[in-house]
Amino acid sequence: MVSEILCVGTELLLGDIINTDGAFIARELAALGFSSYHQSTVGDNPTRLREAIRVALGRSDVIILTGGLGPTCDDITKVAVADEFGLTMKLDEEVLGEIKSYFEAAGREMTENNISQAMIPDGATVFHNKWGTAPGIAVCGEIGGETKHAILLPGPPSECEPMFMECAKPYLVRLSGDVIYSLSLHMRDIGESAAEAILRPIMEEYTNPTVAPYALEHETRIRITARAEDEETAKAMCREMKKTVLKSEAGKYVYCETETPFEAKNATVLTLLSELRKNGVTFAAAESCTAGMIASRIGDIPGASDVLLGGVVSYANEVKENVLGVPHEVLANYGAVSEQCAKYMAEGVRRVTGAGITVSVTGIAGPDGGSKEKPVGMVCFGVADANGTYTETKRFGEKRSRAKIRLLTAMYAMMLVIKRLRGEI
Amino acid sequence: MVSEILCVGTELLLGDIINTDGAFIARELAALGFSSYHQSTVGDNPTRLREAIRVALGRSDVIILTGGLGPTCDDITKVAVADEFGLTMKLDEEVLGEIKSYFEAAGREMTENNISQAMIPDGATVFHNKWGTAPGIAVCGEIGGETKHAILLPGPPSECEPMFMECAKPYLVRLSGDVIYSLSLHMRDIGESAAEAILRPIMEEYTNPTVAPYALEHETRIRITARAEDEETAKAMCREMKKTVLKSEAGKYVYCETETPFEAKNATVLTLLSELRKNGVTFAAAESCTAGMIASRIGDIPGASDVLLGGVVSYANEVKENVLGVPHEVLANYGAVSEQCAKYMAEGVRRVTGAGITVSVTGIAGPDGGSKEKPVGMVCFGVADANGTYTETKRFGEKRSRAKIRLLTAMYAMMLVIKRLRGEI
Repeated sequence: MVSEILCVGTELLLGDIINTDGAFIARELAALGFSSYHQSTVGDNPTRLREAIRVALGRSDVIILTGGLGPTCDDITKVAVADEFGLTMKLDEEVLGEIKSYFEAAGREMTENNISQAMIPDGATVFHNKWGTAPGIAVCGEIGGETKHAILLPGPPSECEPMFMECAKPYLVRLSGDVIYSLSLHMRDIGESAAEAILRPIMEEYTNPTVAPYALEHETRIRITARAEDEETAKAMCREMKKTVLKSEAGKYVYCETETPFEAKNATVLTLLSELRKNGVTFAAAESCTAGMIASRIGDIPGASDVLLGGVVSYANEVKENVLGVPHEVLANYGAVSEQCAKYMAEGVRRVTGAGITVSVTGIAGPDGGSKEKPVGMVCFGVADANGTYTETKRFGEKRSRAKIRLLTAMYAMMLVIKRLRGEI
Repeated sequence: MVSEILCVGTELLLGDIINTDGAFIARELAALGFSSYHQSTVGDNPTRLREAIRVALGRSDVIILTGGLGPTCDDITKVAVADEFGLTMKLDEEVLGEIKSYFEAAGREMTENNISQAMIPDGATVFHNKWGTAPGIAVCGEIGGETKHAILLPGPPSECEPMFMECAKPYLVRLSGDVIYSLSLHMRDIGESAAEAILRPIMEEYTNPTVAPYALEHETRIRITARAEDEETAKAMCREMKKTVLKSEAGKYVYCETETPFEAKNATVLTLLSELRKNGVTFAAAESCTAGMIASRIGDIPGASDVLLGGVVSYANEVKENVLGVPHEVLANYGAVSEQCAKYMAEGVRRVTGAGITVSVTGIAGPDGGSKEKPVGMVCFGVADANGTYTETKRFGEKRSRAKIRLLTAMYAMMLVIKRLRGEI
């Protein structure tokens, strides 16, 4: 079956918000075995919205609409879809009761414009919204002699994502035939085009499963995707292909494997946590230019507290000296951005927190503060454990943005700890 | 003039990556005065890509294509656009030289598939890429008796964004007529629908400038947008409307004003930095559940080092005790999530870093670890300065995700420091 996502919102067209719903739902649709050939965004203009709905229903079996259900939207999305399916709108008392109790629980006053959120196309399936006020809706009917489905979800990701998972997904599973299963092999120390060059023979030889490299925010991953009648078969096909990839030249760059989008996004952090647990050691970080990003990224993961003790953000030299015990002469003689300083930082945070293994970063994130000897993007790292302290200097490139340099620095620091725990450095 | 964004990439349709380019370019197009009614995404399929290009060129004067220029894309986007404008492809020696030197500078080997990136439609304007290998392209010609423009930019945001600003924007400025100018008033302690209810009379009375509330990741902002012949006039119109809004009931919720997307995204952090500088005090944070997010968010801003000293990430109780000096009895009697603990944390980080003002957070980010007395989403805050220590407990709601609770906590902590520096608490 062919599915299509249609995002509604002038704020998307104006670029006021980033369309994360589209990516989230697209991933889930692919996993359910739906094909997707188009994704569109339109504003709150009724004429263009109706036209977009008509085009999407003409070429796809299932359309998923996000947004345009909020209290400020005057209902145009619901009404446009209802019209297309020939349905009238009516007040749903149960939904109205839910909206009222949502406002009571939050201790906020319900405004007049929230009542319109309880208007539902007659005969639609209502998806009750536990995360906000606008209910989701599924509508099914014959259009042009074919069965078509429209699913409407609220726009805010904090409502759209759980409602998709709890309400829309079970609805879609009943419609879907084939299953698609994917796994990802994450690579370090290699870029996307070099990975593609290595993988080209495999990519060309196989069509199911498919093999393709993708650039993530800080690394390259190889995505293996199989289509089959059931999940067990698709999984087995992916596992076989994984062996082929790992045996190829690409294998030596692979450092971990992930299945879910959550795992893929957090591959480095999850690998770090798993290595720390495997080795039975606790962790802390001494962060200068990343200013807490390493610890915060680890703290993103539920349950990280069994190995993450915390750390010190030593942005200023006084904190490096007074909290971490970096000697004044080291700062005076070598500067804060030096392997000497990184060494004392890693050892200092290990001493004050009592962590089994620690990492330190000190570098120049830019855009200012660079020099010929120490350009923007130059970062010094230290990793301290019971066996001593390892240091390294890395240049992430002067042309990169501050945000990118900080991110690459945080991720590289974690990768150094992984390497140390695996005995590679 | 009407513009339209067309994003090319199967990885977008599969949801493997989030489309940030679309939002970035949309914002810039709006600022340049272009109208935008559609935004679409298609995969790497040549037939559907050609069809999408044709539809977009049929209804818009300028289409901006992102993606589909990488070394792994077999050139289909460039060729499809060239065909639509009746142009042939030829090798651009200058671009080829640039790609070669890009790989030399990065110390990486150039692969065969990078050469195709130097193929350019004959007669096109080349946008040289200083951030990667694929050049951007602008093509102009008559289609169906009307002048149409197509601008092609690489997909990775680290290339797309600077290339838009340095190359595509000057090209578009020459085409544009009216100017759109926006400013935003950021609100605290109020949600989007309550803000909308207050603003409704103003929203209905005026059409230029327009006034509209938008939900950001942690707050609501009022966006005032004026369209005029020149920037000076549009600015003056926005400033007048700002006075009207501030005089209304909405005014008491407004805590700062921003102009650029960068400022809007970082409104809370920038306001905090400006208040710290105004008061001539340095800052540090003691973070438990946010695990470094407060310091890291501040470190996102270039030049934050004049007031940000750093902080302590005290995820584990040992760090709260040993580094911050929270008494063991406080943790034993009241628990880590208590105003008593928050008080000692804020004072402790002030003592060890020597900062003028500090904030502490300790709470339950979930999804586990909540209890009846201390549910998920409950966070205790402390703000310490020369006048003493303020504490507060806030419940962000059990139903919210860990990521959302941590974000709201970090931002609320900064807001408390702003309030303290403004003498409100």
